[in-house]
Amino acid sequence: MAKEKKLVEAITSMEEDFAQWYTDVVKKAGLMDYSSIKGCMIFKPNGYAIWENVQKQLDARFKEADVENVYLPMFIPESLLQKEKDHVEGFAPEVAWVTQGGLETLPERLCVRPTSETLFCDLYAGIIQSYRDLPKVYNQWCSVVRWEKTTRPFLRSSEFLWQEGHTAHATEEEAEERTVQMLNIYADFCEEVLAIPMVKGRKTDREKFAGASATYTIEALMHDGKALQSGTSHNFGDGFARAFGIQYTDKENQLQYVHQTSWGVSTRLIGAIIMVHGDDSGLVLPPRIAPVQAMVIPIQQQKEGVLKKAEEVHRNLAKEFRVKMDVTEKSPGWKFAEQEMRGIPVRVELGPKDIAAGQCVVVRRDTREKIVVPLDELNVRLAEILKTMQDDMLSRAKDFLASHISDAHDYDEFQKAAAEKPGFIRGMWCGDEACELKIKEDTTVTSRCMPFDDQEQIAETCVCCGRPAHKLVYWGKAY
Amino acid sequence: MAKEKKLVEAITSMEEDFAQWYTDVVKKAGLMDYSSIKGCMIFKPNGYAIWENVQKQLDARFKEADVENVYLPMFIPESLLQKEKDHVEGFAPEVAWVTQGGLETLPERLCVRPTSETLFCDLYAGIIQSYRDLPKVYNQWCSVVRWEKTTRPFLRSSEFLWQEGHTAHATEEEAEERTVQMLNIYADFCEEVLAIPMVKGRKTDREKFAGASATYTIEALMHDGKALQSGTSHNFGDGFARAFGIQYTDKENQLQYVHQTSWGVSTRLIGAIIMVHGDDSGLVLPPRIAPVQAMVIPIQQQKEGVLKKAEEVHRNLAKEFRVKMDVTEKSPGWKFAEQEMRGIPVRVELGPKDIAAGQCVVVRRDTREKIVVPLDELNVRLAEILKTMQDDMLSRAKDFLASHISDAHDYDEFQKAAAEKPGFIRGMWCGDEACELKIKEDTTVTSRCMPFDDQEQIAETCVCCGRPAHKLVYWGKAY
Repeated sequence: MAKEKKLVEAITSMEEDFAQWYTDVVKKAGLMDYSSIKGCMIFKPNGYAIWENVQKQLDARFKEADVENVYLPMFIPESLLQKEKDHVEGFAPEVAWVTQGGLETLPERLCVRPTSETLFCDLYAGIIQSYRDLPKVYNQWCSVVRWEKTTRPFLRSSEFLWQEGHTAHATEEEAEERTVQMLNIYADFCEEVLAIPMVKGRKTDREKFAGASATYTIEALMHDGKALQSGTSHNFGDGFARAFGIQYTDKENQLQYVHQTSWGVSTRLIGAIIMVHGDDSGLVLPPRIAPVQAMVIPIQQQKEGVLKKAEEVHRNLAKEFRVKMDVTEKSPGWKFAEQEMRGIPVRVELGPKDIAAGQCVVVRRDTREKIVVPLDELNVRLAEILKTMQDDMLSRAKDFLASHISDAHDYDEFQKAAAEKPGFIRGMWCGDEACELKIKEDTTVTSRCMPFDDQEQIAETCVCCGRPAHKLVYWGKAY
Repeated sequence: MAKEKKLVEAITSMEEDFAQWYTDVVKKAGLMDYSSIKGCMIFKPNGYAIWENVQKQLDARFKEADVENVYLPMFIPESLLQKEKDHVEGFAPEVAWVTQGGLETLPERLCVRPTSETLFCDLYAGIIQSYRDLPKVYNQWCSVVRWEKTTRPFLRSSEFLWQEGHTAHATEEEAEERTVQMLNIYADFCEEVLAIPMVKGRKTDREKFAGASATYTIEALMHDGKALQSGTSHNFGDGFARAFGIQYTDKENQLQYVHQTSWGVSTRLIGAIIMVHGDDSGLVLPPRIAPVQAMVIPIQQQKEGVLKKAEEVHRNLAKEFRVKMDVTEKSPGWKFAEQEMRGIPVRVELGPKDIAAGQCVVVRRDTREKIVVPLDELNVRLAEILKTMQDDMLSRAKDFLASHISDAHDYDEFQKAAAEKPGFIRGMWCGDEACELKIKEDTTVTSRCMPFDDQEQIAETCVCCGRPAHKLVYWGKAY
């Protein structure tokens, strides 16, 4: 009992200490554990199951978009990593190096992939000859390693899980189209499945990916008002193609360089789910991504007929939903608290009185609303309840986002917003990196993105230096 | 056209050179490619798609058996690897070592996991306290690294993909039960889905896993008469538990060591599919595992109405089957050859005359049988054809296995069988490792397993030394 009690009681409140609340939820919901390797995490069953659902649903969207999965080696020879100048400068300082294989010292160091642009380029240089070989739209689900000094569960760790798509196209237009297409797939998935609305846009040069000509991003707003970069899609132009010699013969028999893209999301998304939807009782999972959508909890289960009926209900629900039943000897109160901590969208309470009345009580995790449902309507009604809950979660997240965007017209307003208003700040930017740097130094706020769909000019001058400015930027403190 | 021609013509015949045939199929069916990292392979779309189907179907069987998926770090500190003596001796000579992280030399070397017993033990030592915490039945899908000197696609490479299950139990009996249960899940999956019959049994001490008290194995027979170890399940007893201090308090409040198991299958299974079912036209995939089960090939597709009808047929088939359509400008002959090379179970040929007659021609990949099918019965008939093909493939593989097992009663017979009869040799063994070694040196044959279900004594003396023997062993040359 002592252990369960701790599970239920020892969670820090969000308002008191958001960072500690986050760590508590991650641990107590059984999502992850620390390992004995510095900066590396263990994905425990409840955490990994969320990732499995992300994989399954996102991969289905990829396949509809003609993406083919592959798997490339986890090692990159040092000479290969060095072929694209910006890329190696961006990644070399943070990679892990293998120097010995078996009992021998290797003739060349191998880095454990921090990302696989170089390997895909090496492959494409070998298999692309003609325009008939294009496009290539490959993706891999794997883990990558970046030797981080400070780590946080799901948000930043030395090893993490992700997918990385890498494509090669005949034309610049097709590459740009694919870059945008994948960003939209990410944004739609996050909104429709994770109930997380995204701000979409382009990164400034300072924030773009090492080696990219343009980086597009989706940025989500966490409950503490900080932004989380949740997915990126890069257009490489022909930069990597020139460095790696990836050429094809076009229909006129001319040799051309391919145009490339890459795009990825990672287990960071789990961090986003926690920090957008969680509350002081723990995790709250949107029904579409929840590994367990409903937990059946029998009340007074020792009484005759209760377990039998609960099993029947469980069996029926299992035909349509991801459902479990808690028949341990814990008290109903503990079972409720555990189900809430794990963020299971609803629980189905069923006691002797309910059974006598031919009903059960469905309790929503997000609102705590109790809904009495006749047993013979349970499957239909549960589908409705889960749908409503999913919609409500998205709409609350959208409201939160909308109410946490403030406009700044000059540097005074900007600094005041940075100090007092958690969330995004919209402000014009002249395009000079010096302003980005000054803002960061003064306020710890960084440029998150320049929105695509917003031609709005909220002012005519840069929010930092006062010079003429035409670019609207979403600024924010970020994870 | 030159490229396609090569695809179709340049495959070596099996009888002529089996090893070269294998390499040709692997390359020309688009399963894999070599990478610029020694011993590491690239899983190309057609190869990775097979692995995805293995994962999907095997994982569903795991989940029915209460297995929970997790993900542990890819690095193991040297000190952790060294905790279990036999285990480190078995693996240390063949691991890759990370010695630098970012710009710094690490205080302790980390090996890239060759297998993760030590990490799971470290985790279990932390999270198991009471009998209430047991059993733990965790599994992970990941890649592992073993620094191999000689490599072959899918069969032996420095990095490969696999799953590794690791469990902890309160009792010896429960651990033994889980070890056998998982071996049976593997054997059933291979037989029912891959159409590969397995010989099941226990490994001799010489052949068992480093650190295990018993290793069980499934062994398949390839078309060249060589055995392929296709999956293993290990009972560790409490050896690792003692080395790592994994203890729990039982119901009587006594401290006890847990009993552990581990079990795994890898991308080797793809090698088994190729070498059991392939023929001189390329790969032959069992319908249940084939990423594409049927390829619709329009004939005279430029004629009016052909493409439209083919699209309609494709759309209808796609509701029930994994199906693609080849509408490239290649000739039907080339399309047939490509579909055959890739091992797609059936092709559906559809030309103007077929359309006029309201029919199509279904051609089985394994037998080349042509079956005229009315279009309005196509979905029903195709399901039957695929089922029959799956059954026929298994039954041919079973016949092949049965006809490639010979009994040896003394060493003369044994050596003759080893030299002349490809396949398994059944022979009694005294239990002395010296005999295993002598047999291996004389004939390159190794002990594959001691069958569970065979109490048959085919002789009373050891096939090697002539001393009394009670153990029946399946011997064979192996990959």
